[in-house]
Amino acid sequence: MFESAELGHEVDKETFKKEVPLLRAALLDVQYDVLQKKEFPVVILISGVDGSGKGETINLLYSWMDPRHISTLAFSTPSDEEAARPYMWRYWRALPAKGKVGIFAGSWYSQPIADRITGVMRRAELDEQLDDINRFEAMLVNEGALVLKFWFHLSKDGQKKRLKALEKDPRTAWRVTKESYDRLKTYDKLQDVAGHVLRVTNTAKAPWIIVEGTDDAYRSLTVGRIVLDAMKRRLQQPLQQVPVAPPIIHPIDRKNVLSELDLTQKLGKKDYESQLAKYQSRLSELVRDPRFVGKRSLVLVFEGSDAAGKGGSIRRLGAAMDARQYQIIPIAAPTEEERVQPYLWRFWRHLPRTGRVAIFDRSWYGRVLVERVEGFCSEPDWLRAYAEINDFEHQLAQAGTVVVKFWLQISAEEQLRRFKERQDTEFKRFKITDEDWRNREKWDEYVSAVCDMVDRTSTGQAPWTLVEANDKNFARVKVLKTLCERLEDALKDEGKKS
Amino acid sequence: MFESAELGHEVDKETFKKEVPLLRAALLDVQYDVLQKKEFPVVILISGVDGSGKGETINLLYSWMDPRHISTLAFSTPSDEEAARPYMWRYWRALPAKGKVGIFAGSWYSQPIADRITGVMRRAELDEQLDDINRFEAMLVNEGALVLKFWFHLSKDGQKKRLKALEKDPRTAWRVTKESYDRLKTYDKLQDVAGHVLRVTNTAKAPWIIVEGTDDAYRSLTVGRIVLDAMKRRLQQPLQQVPVAPPIIHPIDRKNVLSELDLTQKLGKKDYESQLAKYQSRLSELVRDPRFVGKRSLVLVFEGSDAAGKGGSIRRLGAAMDARQYQIIPIAAPTEEERVQPYLWRFWRHLPRTGRVAIFDRSWYGRVLVERVEGFCSEPDWLRAYAEINDFEHQLAQAGTVVVKFWLQISAEEQLRRFKERQDTEFKRFKITDEDWRNREKWDEYVSAVCDMVDRTSTGQAPWTLVEANDKNFARVKVLKTLCERLEDALKDEGKKS
Repeated sequence: MFESAELGHEVDKETFKKEVPLLRAALLDVQYDVLQKKEFPVVILISGVDGSGKGETINLLYSWMDPRHISTLAFSTPSDEEAARPYMWRYWRALPAKGKVGIFAGSWYSQPIADRITGVMRRAELDEQLDDINRFEAMLVNEGALVLKFWFHLSKDGQKKRLKALEKDPRTAWRVTKESYDRLKTYDKLQDVAGHVLRVTNTAKAPWIIVEGTDDAYRSLTVGRIVLDAMKRRLQQPLQQVPVAPPIIHPIDRKNVLSELDLTQKLGKKDYESQLAKYQSRLSELVRDPRFVGKRSLVLVFEGSDAAGKGGSIRRLGAAMDARQYQIIPIAAPTEEERVQPYLWRFWRHLPRTGRVAIFDRSWYGRVLVERVEGFCSEPDWLRAYAEINDFEHQLAQAGTVVVKFWLQISAEEQLRRFKERQDTEFKRFKITDEDWRNREKWDEYVSAVCDMVDRTSTGQAPWTLVEANDKNFARVKVLKTLCERLEDALKDEGKKS
Repeated sequence: MFESAELGHEVDKETFKKEVPLLRAALLDVQYDVLQKKEFPVVILISGVDGSGKGETINLLYSWMDPRHISTLAFSTPSDEEAARPYMWRYWRALPAKGKVGIFAGSWYSQPIADRITGVMRRAELDEQLDDINRFEAMLVNEGALVLKFWFHLSKDGQKKRLKALEKDPRTAWRVTKESYDRLKTYDKLQDVAGHVLRVTNTAKAPWIIVEGTDDAYRSLTVGRIVLDAMKRRLQQPLQQVPVAPPIIHPIDRKNVLSELDLTQKLGKKDYESQLAKYQSRLSELVRDPRFVGKRSLVLVFEGSDAAGKGGSIRRLGAAMDARQYQIIPIAAPTEEERVQPYLWRFWRHLPRTGRVAIFDRSWYGRVLVERVEGFCSEPDWLRAYAEINDFEHQLAQAGTVVVKFWLQISAEEQLRRFKERQDTEFKRFKITDEDWRNREKWDEYVSAVCDMVDRTSTGQAPWTLVEANDKNFARVKVLKTLCERLEDALKDEGKKS
């Protein structure tokens, strides 16, 4: 793995001095092209052995490019806001926008490598996390990002020499701490773990670039040239769409998960009122349970036909909780700041912290519903969304978030009745738009999209609940009941763990 | 102060049942008008005595309006990210966007009131903070916000009764804790402090609305009606511009702070190199000093004529620091998410945490420079900006942030020379735009704006440094030297304190 990076690569001062002005001019030029095109972000990971010159090279990159459009983020101990959310949240919030360069000094690799060296993390856990990372990086690349992962290597002897040299120079002596020497002791262990990590995550989409760290000039010039070359090539190549997944299967008969729903199910007024009260009070206890408040969070997804009663159901949930504990996030068209980020970014930013509840009124499933049907994104984009969404929800579940997803279904006739009623009711008129009427014409296409969505994203950790919603009372109680049951199960598990 | 709120106001069940549907329909209606107009946010503060029904009323407001466009934020102990920034940062980040309703359960008043009751805060400090709050709220109103501040009052006896009643009902018993009873003991003290706070902050722009909290129906109906009425009236009235401040004074002779600068000052190559090295190394020590890293942060502002060399100066600073410690924030046109917030919001969001450095390449001074000269905002808007900016920087200084502001000045002739040079240099061409040429034609207007800015915003805590920048070497060294001196002074103070 590291053979080529122990050859004692060097660049003499003369060459360095000659090369830098050319490199700098070219880098500035390409950086401005990237900035003006605003089509993709540049994500640079600088990782490697201690004392291998990560900081020095980052600082040089700053002096070679326009530092106003670069951001560097160093990640050490997570802040409490970060610790209360899934592992990747802090990295999502730090992603550079399209057109910008983001340098990660310490990245999503640091924690697993450190935890594996100290033994906190078992090999199987590490491999699971590396799988997550591979999928995350593939997503970034599919979203257009240029991802460059550098690993600075030093031979054992080289590391010792670098530390001594840093210590001698009064300008850099502060960088050498007791910990630096401690890490020297774990050199072999690090090589072992890093070797494994690099092999497993050395993907075609985001390969590792291993650079010998001993000589400052060689290391930085190498990185600068690779960054330049990669940015240039990325500018010339349009985003390559991933090969299309096997086509979605259309059943030959008319049977599907929606057609099989019994939409005639009803709940009389009296039953409704007593059950509503029962489940609301149960819900109100569950979200105040110390096992929930201290350890879990809740993400609710509401999707459904237009006029299926999402708003009404959400309102009934809300009535059982304290407004200070939950947020409703209505999903509309993405803002400017959201459009320059990967698709899922605008959902990551709203994730609740431990003890809190986020209710999404429409959600990330927009990509495989409206965006698919209306052609707002390409086929490869919505096809890969299934896997990305499953990953996303898997990460939520891993972090202790209970994910509960509802699809509210009404019949075409019931929808028509509700549309007409809304048009006739003064204070409900805002609820009906021309778009609703247009969507209605694509009823069958939406049915296909929903069925595919359910098949591909109903997982053990985050199953879909299909709600028969022709009768509002029935639907609301089913939503509340399902939610209570899911929460109870989760807290039972919590009880067992502790 | 609280006389009218101890009369035993009540609304009977009958009336409540009759009123609510009408109120609800009207509230929904007006909420949608506000949402569609997207002209102003609605900021609602719900504060008051413990057990006075704050939570209940907030939850009712949710059931009366469309909860998808309301956000409620409860503020208790600040997170570590919040604690590492000025006091108001957490409230700025929670402000609702134009068109939305934001309910603050616990607000910027909670901390000072609590600290005054426990005696942690002295009366003079409290009054100082109340002044800050008054100016903050005035800013919100001037920016268009509808600010409604509710204080729920209970008589001493009333509070005891409410606690008992809450305790009896199994659905609300959890709300009553030992602390609730502790607070009963400090009832008189709270009344005393709250009375003072309410008097001092009962401004014409954001008056307090005191509501008796004893009866649920009365309290919530009152709040609902006031919210409805205020939103309606705000929709009908266009934003009232504040009366214009005394006109800016134009000197009769041609003498001004810029004309008095000696732009011929120069620094030879040798001197430059030795001084650059000296101050860079001093700066690099200062930002690594434990007194800085643990307690202070640094905000740098770079303003100046076009082509005055801001970028070059920033680069020389950056070279002395670790890229992981600072961020450069280039200020361009505001994004969509920034345009629906008060003017200063987009700067608050970039404030550095303790130990970090933020370098603003252009800044909040845009309002009194380009926006004033080009007419991008109204005269009352830029006139009030001086005071708002001083407040902002005062808050930064209070929180331990060192604020250093540079104006880089070149002569009209030197600017012309640099513009031409840039046009002729391939890789500098991106630096010159048509806008630069247009700005140049308004040279004199910019001079007036700069002089007014310096006079009105050069404060003891955050003075302006005017930099003679015809000679780049001279300018860069002056910037570095000034920064080092300001940091040294700040750390000396830090040394004395501890």
